[in-house]
Amino acid sequence: MNPSKNEVEVKTEAAKAASKRMAYLSTEIKNRALLSIADRLMAGEKDILVANNLDYAAGEKAGMGTAMLDRLLLTTERIQSMAADVRAVAALPDPVGETFEMRTLPNGLQVGKRRVPVGVIGAIYESRPNVTVDISVLCLKSGNAVVLRGGKEAKNSNLALAMVIQNAAYQSGIPEGAVQLIESKDRALVAQMLKMRDTIDLIIPRGGADLINNVAQNASMPVVTGGIGVCHTYVDRSADLAKAIAIAHNAKVQRPTVCNALDTLLVHMNIADSYLPKIAAEWSEAGVEIRCDQRSSGILQPLSLHKVVPASDKDWGKEFLALVAAVKVVDSLDEALAHIERYGSGHSEAIVTEDYGAAVRFLKEVDAACVYVNASTRFTDGGQFGLGAEVGISTQKLHARGPLGLRELTTYKWIVMGDGQVRP
Amino acid sequence: MNPSKNEVEVKTEAAKAASKRMAYLSTEIKNRALLSIADRLMAGEKDILVANNLDYAAGEKAGMGTAMLDRLLLTTERIQSMAADVRAVAALPDPVGETFEMRTLPNGLQVGKRRVPVGVIGAIYESRPNVTVDISVLCLKSGNAVVLRGGKEAKNSNLALAMVIQNAAYQSGIPEGAVQLIESKDRALVAQMLKMRDTIDLIIPRGGADLINNVAQNASMPVVTGGIGVCHTYVDRSADLAKAIAIAHNAKVQRPTVCNALDTLLVHMNIADSYLPKIAAEWSEAGVEIRCDQRSSGILQPLSLHKVVPASDKDWGKEFLALVAAVKVVDSLDEALAHIERYGSGHSEAIVTEDYGAAVRFLKEVDAACVYVNASTRFTDGGQFGLGAEVGISTQKLHARGPLGLRELTTYKWIVMGDGQVRP
Repeated sequence: MNPSKNEVEVKTEAAKAASKRMAYLSTEIKNRALLSIADRLMAGEKDILVANNLDYAAGEKAGMGTAMLDRLLLTTERIQSMAADVRAVAALPDPVGETFEMRTLPNGLQVGKRRVPVGVIGAIYESRPNVTVDISVLCLKSGNAVVLRGGKEAKNSNLALAMVIQNAAYQSGIPEGAVQLIESKDRALVAQMLKMRDTIDLIIPRGGADLINNVAQNASMPVVTGGIGVCHTYVDRSADLAKAIAIAHNAKVQRPTVCNALDTLLVHMNIADSYLPKIAAEWSEAGVEIRCDQRSSGILQPLSLHKVVPASDKDWGKEFLALVAAVKVVDSLDEALAHIERYGSGHSEAIVTEDYGAAVRFLKEVDAACVYVNASTRFTDGGQFGLGAEVGISTQKLHARGPLGLRELTTYKWIVMGDGQVRP
Repeated sequence: MNPSKNEVEVKTEAAKAASKRMAYLSTEIKNRALLSIADRLMAGEKDILVANNLDYAAGEKAGMGTAMLDRLLLTTERIQSMAADVRAVAALPDPVGETFEMRTLPNGLQVGKRRVPVGVIGAIYESRPNVTVDISVLCLKSGNAVVLRGGKEAKNSNLALAMVIQNAAYQSGIPEGAVQLIESKDRALVAQMLKMRDTIDLIIPRGGADLINNVAQNASMPVVTGGIGVCHTYVDRSADLAKAIAIAHNAKVQRPTVCNALDTLLVHMNIADSYLPKIAAEWSEAGVEIRCDQRSSGILQPLSLHKVVPASDKDWGKEFLALVAAVKVVDSLDEALAHIERYGSGHSEAIVTEDYGAAVRFLKEVDAACVYVNASTRFTDGGQFGLGAEVGISTQKLHARGPLGLRELTTYKWIVMGDGQVRP
């Protein structure tokens, strides 16, 4: 180790060097490495659990909350599940090498694009140690080297997992250096990582809003941001009531803690009297707190349901991540569109309607990663969209938007094949 | 104008507001606006030239060099040429609205992507006033609003051109506010623009390396960087001599001042004795200064050609932008690949070979925006690649790489059409 360079510099440069050879590694070697990682996760269970126990005990001692402790915890089942996920990624098609948009120009030049890895991906994440495995495996499969920087609360777990990954990968033919774990917990190293645009090609932050915003604001290289979803479902006056109930219920209740869950329900005034009591009854039974604007209050308060309360201004545009929904009656599709434009976070937005024109307008005018007609926003997910593994959900507009699969960890280069052409 | 906000804030917010309606403007309105801009450029020639004279006179007075004065200068011919370019963009297909990768999932959901504008594009550029027209028109055609910040040396010209564009566009149905010119020359406003990631979706810097690096390092939103090309042509031992001469000559001489021109010629040792004297004779006749490594010196010095000089270490990896080439004899394809990896800027790299395996390896292993077999690197250009208008050439890896056309000023959103689907 060069004494004049710190850990981040040394490890990132090693990753860069490895990435050059990663770019044209065969699918066979990459899959062999992934299957070996899966095997060794299972075989190394004991060591991993010992390391995780250290983190867990330290977390308990430090007074970490139950939810965070649960995210930190590894068990035999969770390790088995990680290994199964790694095998699933091994089974996916290799995105690298595909040549596309190839055509022959009038001068005989063949010009097209070939899909290639991005290079070095930096991952900055919190608590959940499975992200170490998750991101490493997605990067390896897509031909990228990776520099991992996990949270200090999971340091022993991350180290144990990274060693399993490194040993398995390098012994399977992955170039040494392709998987790097930053061990120092010096926070200045994160700031340094964010400025290394010559060696880190893309940064993926995984964690809370503070982490994501810090990375997005300060990174000098491209960042895949996302994970924050303020999602609306608008029930149009022409909506089919049964569909509108099923969709809003599913979007709110099926898994309320995730970014694609419903936050605000907008209801056209012409259908509010018939629709709102029905969805409110279902939600109420499921324990949903319903925060109502004045007009929806007028309809729901007389029904004496549990947890129907007045909404405050802060409830519009809020991501609840819980069994809470804001409800507003609107005069028109226009008002719904304006509300979504103002308060949406560009994640997932839905309309329930039987009106062709309303569906077309909603698809056209809503600016979000995923725009739905007559379906639950809960479908915003790489697996659900058929992308195989999911790297994350992007709410930024460039490079890739919405659910990101392996292909979104690649870029392309232009390939030009001639037989002596020169430019006139 | 809100007195608590400065010019950049007010104009960028206005652009953002306009961009919402730009996103679903018809192709007809956009094309009508472009044709009107072309007409008014011609009709407004006198005013534009008066404004340009002010800038030119100020430039002369300030002791501006001939090359820079020439870049600043507008003439009747140049205005006609600008108008013709605008008409050419009007004639290109509209990239917005295309729906692609649409498929039906097992549950009946139809999921696909629809191409949409990026939103607000910021352009920061130097001297040449035609960039004002160029970027505005490309942004309008691709449905984006634009915030322009040109150089102070062209301020009167840019203002006159922006007024022509704004009047023509708004009277043709483009939402008011879609084209903004920052008039203040306070440099702090550039720094401020680079941090406005909530309102500016993408930044395009156009100018010298200092400007581009400043923007790339400091922008918090995605940046399209490029324009710096250290381009190699490698003549393999199996090269066809006639092709290798024509290609290297074209790449160096046809237009030496641009980023896709040849900088370094690498020649396999087995072919150096027969090839180097021939290309050197042609180059010498064209006035090319040839900076030789030791081995190529040994071959070329005895020929007493003009301008054959020893290369210094600084000549490797240098973008000459002039009739200068560095020449190096290499032992093998491996050495050529290693040299390109070390010194290339990821722009355009070429091999001349009749060997299938060498061609395949070069295409596979070289990491650059454009990789060539048996053709001149001068083809790296949106027009040459058949993209129509060119926004620039990107040497970054994310979002888009190499020549950028109108499509690269767009992104996509996911469209999901169901009939009541919920997630199980």
